[in-house]
Amino acid sequence: METALLAPKTPAFERDCPIRLVLDRIADKWTVMMMSLLSDGRPHRFNELRRNVEGISQKMLTQTLRDLERDGLVARTVFAEIPPRVEYRLTHLGVTLCEPIARLGEWAVAHVDEVKRAQASFDAR
Amino acid sequence: METALLAPKTPAFERDCPIRLVLDRIADKWTVMMMSLLSDGRPHRFNELRRNVEGISQKMLTQTLRDLERDGLVARTVFAEIPPRVEYRLTHLGVTLCEPIARLGEWAVAHVDEVKRAQASFDAR
Repeated sequence: METALLAPKTPAFERDCPIRLVLDRIADKWTVMMMSLLSDGRPHRFNELRRNVEGISQKMLTQTLRDLERDGLVARTVFAEIPPRVEYRLTHLGVTLCEPIARLGEWAVAHVDEVKRAQASFDAR
Repeated sequence: METALLAPKTPAFERDCPIRLVLDRIADKWTVMMMSLLSDGRPHRFNELRRNVEGISQKMLTQTLRDLERDGLVARTVFAEIPPRVEYRLTHLGVTLCEPIARLGEWAVAHVDEVKRAQASFDAR
């Protein structure tokens, strides 16, 4: 099997290599769920996003959206209304990440039963 | 843009839904790096894996490999030698996760400069 990730050197993943910088950010379950919710291309309100991830705290959602904005994946727009309206939507860069994220999500849906069985079997040893 | 992740209901991501169970596990930077290293199909030794992820602690690598074994993604084989030899390799289920992981890694490599520029621009605001 080929992989684009492995350069023929040691260590393959140096501490400050680009791929770790990015994985540090996107390989995170909240990020993956947020990107999935935003992947419909529509603008979303904070509370709408919050309602769609059961149990996420306000603090965690705020931090996740702020990090996504900092990474250039999500645009935050504030409308001068009373009360102020804030909308989040994917940037062009964010849209390019939807495809790999969707593949990961599809894998999760397709294989959750196998993973659960393996976990039960491991725990029973 | 279509996504297989979003059912037309609220919340889209319920606390105990299958996709969160799996994302909890695989959306993790150490997991992604480990799966990438193992994706060549060869068996790998613990210390070889450790050398290839600069700065990973023995404890974190042990936990990551144990979790991957519990999820059914990695097989751990102990050979009765002195000293005992332990090898890690992907299971069949693990192999099926390589493709989505590789897509994520390719995205990281392709877009790291854009992410870095966005971060610098955000931090300069």
